[in-house]
Amino acid sequence: MIVKEGRVVGYGRTQDGGRPHAERVAISMAGPEARGATAYVTLEPCNVESPRGCCAQALIDAGVSEVHVGQIDPNDHTNGSGVERLRAAGITVHTGLCRSEAEDVHKGFISRITQNRPFITLKIASSLDGKIAAKDGSSQWITGEQARAYAHGMRAGHDAILVGIGTALADDPLLITRVPGLTHKAVRVVLDTHLRIDTGSKLVQTAQDEPLWIIHAEDKDNKKQQLEAAGCMLISSEDMSVSSVVQALAVQGITRLLVEGGAGVHTSFVRSGLYDEIAWFRGDKILGEGLPVLGDLGIESIAEALMLERVESVVLGADTLDIFRKKG
Amino acid sequence: MIVKEGRVVGYGRTQDGGRPHAERVAISMAGPEARGATAYVTLEPCNVESPRGCCAQALIDAGVSEVHVGQIDPNDHTNGSGVERLRAAGITVHTGLCRSEAEDVHKGFISRITQNRPFITLKIASSLDGKIAAKDGSSQWITGEQARAYAHGMRAGHDAILVGIGTALADDPLLITRVPGLTHKAVRVVLDTHLRIDTGSKLVQTAQDEPLWIIHAEDKDNKKQQLEAAGCMLISSEDMSVSSVVQALAVQGITRLLVEGGAGVHTSFVRSGLYDEIAWFRGDKILGEGLPVLGDLGIESIAEALMLERVESVVLGADTLDIFRKKG
Repeated sequence: MIVKEGRVVGYGRTQDGGRPHAERVAISMAGPEARGATAYVTLEPCNVESPRGCCAQALIDAGVSEVHVGQIDPNDHTNGSGVERLRAAGITVHTGLCRSEAEDVHKGFISRITQNRPFITLKIASSLDGKIAAKDGSSQWITGEQARAYAHGMRAGHDAILVGIGTALADDPLLITRVPGLTHKAVRVVLDTHLRIDTGSKLVQTAQDEPLWIIHAEDKDNKKQQLEAAGCMLISSEDMSVSSVVQALAVQGITRLLVEGGAGVHTSFVRSGLYDEIAWFRGDKILGEGLPVLGDLGIESIAEALMLERVESVVLGADTLDIFRKKG
Repeated sequence: MIVKEGRVVGYGRTQDGGRPHAERVAISMAGPEARGATAYVTLEPCNVESPRGCCAQALIDAGVSEVHVGQIDPNDHTNGSGVERLRAAGITVHTGLCRSEAEDVHKGFISRITQNRPFITLKIASSLDGKIAAKDGSSQWITGEQARAYAHGMRAGHDAILVGIGTALADDPLLITRVPGLTHKAVRVVLDTHLRIDTGSKLVQTAQDEPLWIIHAEDKDNKKQQLEAAGCMLISSEDMSVSSVVQALAVQGITRLLVEGGAGVHTSFVRSGLYDEIAWFRGDKILGEGLPVLGDLGIESIAEALMLERVESVVLGADTLDIFRKKG
């Protein structure tokens, strides 16, 4: 945002696909008004050399006299050098304004840069006694309408939604985000080692309109070509480990991943430690025996328990949502 | 409470053991000031014929001119006739003042009168994924200090605390309520079909000072006499069913029962439907595989799930407590 004499003269966000950056959008809106103005940016202006020049230089050229930076860009090509470039040009630079908000906004981007994987949220929906389905496998619905609508809305905040092939075969889900007024299409990702996915499934049938990526290790039944023809993108992974899967997604540009299950997939992610948050929806019911939310985590005694920290709680009608982060 | 011209002239509660009733305590405090005063009672004054007369008559004799009753006493001998007696004597009677608060205060008493069993609260402490112990059986501690202190304090609000013999043998608990300034001693109850309890256990060793009742079906090892000598009260039950156990406790005067587990006992109570509330403490940890909080409830599909209603939520440090009631 570019502000001059208490008036907003330009604002912008980095556009879909990553270009142009927010600074250029705002500078273009401000035009000559940018001269002598103050710019507020959530992320440090980039200092990457490119034919179009970097954003730090664009701010210098626009003549802004002061810049407030929320968070330093950890990308090697910038990482403080954007701020240095501005200062060298005589611009006053302040860093750390609304830093925690900035970090929250950029968490996917930062995770991809610094950890080579997306920011990962595991979405769990269980009964009060920790079951995701009854004895007979039925699970519709563990939570009520309000909680399901909230969970649906969460998809819009992610680049990709991941399920295991078990869930894909059992539920034949669509995994589409329909939020009125929102055109964002999250990529649908299926972990499908042996390419067991049904070519007649809703997922495959909608692959022309809604991106569907299938991560697999082998193609015994020669389904690959058929799936590609249906519009799916096939990504091969030798070991199908969580680390190679999330790395493959980062390579494809995914910065925020929502892992919707089932229990086997959630268990793998928790065991690997490759997740950042758990969004745990709890329905207002008890099932007794049934399918447990998580399988073996290799935890033998209470001293080895995996500690979580509740960072948010939301009441959704008769149900609840708790957001947890790994502790320490 | 007896109020005259805006001033409290007497108050009282029904004394331990059930006599004298609250009205007599308050009337005795008010003395001649009761004449022309207004009495506020949570429960309808009794109309039972006894050598000392009933409370309705005591209020008439004391000369009060107005009585506010929170809740009608469902006891056969009263059940509205206390109010009638007051009215017949020319006293103005209003009913329903703070009724829901009164019902909450009397819930144990009412349950014993109308259902022939105590008001029953199941106390559960589980991990986030619904386990009460890790794979190796370790469970100390599922919840933190603050939650445990709160759970301990809950005992003071109950006449009796019940555990199964499995818990008694595994944990060697004391089950004593130590709250500074409080002398209330809840009865400790162990469900012990075959009298397997260890005579050297903390429970038995403290039975002279803290009441310990052992509900059993058989006495193969002739332990009964030894246990009685140690101060335990032995209650025999032919079928050890939940319904006969809670009926036996009601006969002994228990109006509020806290069922502390373990999983087998909780499962029996939930299956039988003989409970009113579940107090569910949840620790800030995940265990994966381990001992589930509840066993088989005979629920096959999600449609048969047991529905609960959350009536209270408390954050206790890193842990939470939710109080549930059966829905509908």
